[in-house]
Amino acid sequence: MKARAASRDYRGLDRVIHERGRLAIMSMLAGGIGRMAFTEIRERLAMTDGNLSRHLAALEESGLVKMERRTGRGRPQTEVALTGEGRRAFAGYLERLEQILSQAKAATSEERAGAAAARARGREPEPEPA
Amino acid sequence: MKARAASRDYRGLDRVIHERGRLAIMSMLAGGIGRMAFTEIRERLAMTDGNLSRHLAALEESGLVKMERRTGRGRPQTEVALTGEGRRAFAGYLERLEQILSQAKAATSEERAGAAAARARGREPEPEPA
Repeated sequence: MKARAASRDYRGLDRVIHERGRLAIMSMLAGGIGRMAFTEIRERLAMTDGNLSRHLAALEESGLVKMERRTGRGRPQTEVALTGEGRRAFAGYLERLEQILSQAKAATSEERAGAAAARARGREPEPEPA
Repeated sequence: MKARAASRDYRGLDRVIHERGRLAIMSMLAGGIGRMAFTEIRERLAMTDGNLSRHLAALEESGLVKMERRTGRGRPQTEVALTGEGRRAFAGYLERLEQILSQAKAATSEERAGAAAARARGREPEPEPA
């Protein structure tokens, strides 16, 4: 059954992306031009250097972002860039998340109707047939 | 700035709900009549007894669900019911999540325009003014 499969899809939610700090980072990167300065991310998310570094290391290790040291005018700065794999993985993550949040709802709307009918008959609803 | 505040909102994502197994459980409960048999949840999510018990204990400890032992016709069974607090917390969670996913996008669309303009001028974009 489709809705049942969708419920189980929570296992498909990438753990590396799902962690809430990293989700915020990935969301900003994926929503924008795909690259931001380390300092800009740190400021926007009000994270400490250490915390952001740890999150980025986890994302980099999974091939989702890459770090680039930029030199040029002014001080050198580290830029964080989403990789192609990172963009695909984030799109996949959003798709799974959407399934869990919306199809789980659809899955239970039949039960709601069934339960209402059962209450009207004065008994508990039967478990759904397999 | 609104978008900046929204990005920081990742801290407002309830950790207890955000864990992906518990997110799947809460999503099913909140989408339905608010209560399900333990065995039904276990089957739908293909979780082990132990795993589901641990997740439910965490949700119960936070006051998000309550467990009810039902006796009557047939074998006694444990039902899991969403509390009023659980329903409110889940609604709040979804709202924050939506903000992180969508407003972070909005936050960076200005930058995208700025970056395109900067590229047209042949240099890197300036950091956004505070």
